[in-house]
Amino acid sequence: MGVYRLDLEYEGTRYRGWQEQKNARSVAGELRRALEEVVGAPVELGGAGRTDAGVHALEQVAHLKTAARLRPERLVHEVNDRLPADIHLLSVRGAAERFHARHTALSRSYLYQVSLRRTALAKRFVWWVRRPLELAAMSQAAAHVVGRHDFAAFCEKPDEQTSTLVVIEGCEVAREGDLVLIRIVASHFLWKMVRRLVGTLVEVGAGEIGPRDLERVLAGGGTGTAARPAEWTAPPSGLFLERVIYPGDPALGPLRAAVPVAAPLARG
Amino acid sequence: MGVYRLDLEYEGTRYRGWQEQKNARSVAGELRRALEEVVGAPVELGGAGRTDAGVHALEQVAHLKTAARLRPERLVHEVNDRLPADIHLLSVRGAAERFHARHTALSRSYLYQVSLRRTALAKRFVWWVRRPLELAAMSQAAAHVVGRHDFAAFCEKPDEQTSTLVVIEGCEVAREGDLVLIRIVASHFLWKMVRRLVGTLVEVGAGEIGPRDLERVLAGGGTGTAARPAEWTAPPSGLFLERVIYPGDPALGPLRAAVPVAAPLARG
Repeated sequence: MGVYRLDLEYEGTRYRGWQEQKNARSVAGELRRALEEVVGAPVELGGAGRTDAGVHALEQVAHLKTAARLRPERLVHEVNDRLPADIHLLSVRGAAERFHARHTALSRSYLYQVSLRRTALAKRFVWWVRRPLELAAMSQAAAHVVGRHDFAAFCEKPDEQTSTLVVIEGCEVAREGDLVLIRIVASHFLWKMVRRLVGTLVEVGAGEIGPRDLERVLAGGGTGTAARPAEWTAPPSGLFLERVIYPGDPALGPLRAAVPVAAPLARG
Repeated sequence: MGVYRLDLEYEGTRYRGWQEQKNARSVAGELRRALEEVVGAPVELGGAGRTDAGVHALEQVAHLKTAARLRPERLVHEVNDRLPADIHLLSVRGAAERFHARHTALSRSYLYQVSLRRTALAKRFVWWVRRPLELAAMSQAAAHVVGRHDFAAFCEKPDEQTSTLVVIEGCEVAREGDLVLIRIVASHFLWKMVRRLVGTLVEVGAGEIGPRDLERVLAGGGTGTAARPAEWTAPPSGLFLERVIYPGDPALGPLRAAVPVAAPLARG
């Protein structure tokens, strides 16, 4: 059985998410169709991060298991020729027999792009927030997010989870031009958790609640604060699965926009 | 009569170009409709650069003349509320009575994005060239383009021009990630000239012709060389009107991508 690691990027706008579904267009479904056309037989395919409908990926990782012998370099071209324009296979390489895209991964990094202005060129890749945002307050709140907390208040259908405890390894906020960028790194995430954390950080930035309110929600489930994470779910358009981190991978680079809000760039 | 300067960005994909046309969707047509809805009367509107169908703008400039008294700050919001998502008014300011977007401009800067790989996120903003490109040769050829030349060989319908002489102020080539960026600055451009210059520079980069061939086309109209600029028209998707330069404006900033080919960004 040959095992391969696939890296891919996609624009999630037209898809109901990564995960294969009946009667809905998914990224994994498109990838499987293209792979099976090339390989000529059913394959085993699994992704590292289950991105939701409309969420993009700069670097999703998947494993491919097949009895067929493949030439990775050739597979990339042949599969890309069969993929829709908004899904792109970056690379294919042979992997260890035990490689599993989801289980082998140590952590996932998500990037969120909030735009402070309307944008004609990057609309599909941002959430446009019209209120002014206080970055210092957002950074302070982001620091509270780091560590081991119960994220039940940030989770859709928390009762379906075996646990709502998550260790956040990093949460950064940075400004780049007219964008506010938020990066959140953790070993795993609960359903809608990233988008609710972003939505809540934006409320902190807008002065709706203080960084302390967020801290209290994280400590005790939210009683006595004005924080309502479930009502503050940021839209999927601004969210990217940025990177999946495996043992031995280099550290994450500096926080930068995936798709910047372009003009006016050319100012001296 | 009030005179205003309008700066705007747009994605040109869905439009038949800047210029208003009967029975075709144009950027100026959309802008005029939105402006006249807000102002409540017909307005005089003129743009600095006549971008072709599918060409984008990071900073198009237009003049607006109207008898109505306008509040620029409010106009921006009201007009943007009435514009399609792929056109965005960046700013409106009062201008001198003699201000004319096209005649007052000293020069225009165009940016072209060639992608060296297939891209899922930036497809609308690049020309994907599959052949490897030699940047040194392209830069050498670009240097030959600078100066006063007869660009008849690069012009669609040169007979309709009073003159095909153009002074190119700058022509730069740079690499940024998987993109090759080309910037061309001139007081004016002939029809399709930028796209044919880019197409020819790409042929130089691919080794199809030498930098000297380009020099000879520019010197004498092309006899005795393998250069066929009219057959090498780069597609509009990679082209941006980057900036319109007026008296007193600061120098152009460094050449940078408008919409980068994103992944993998997060490598340390």
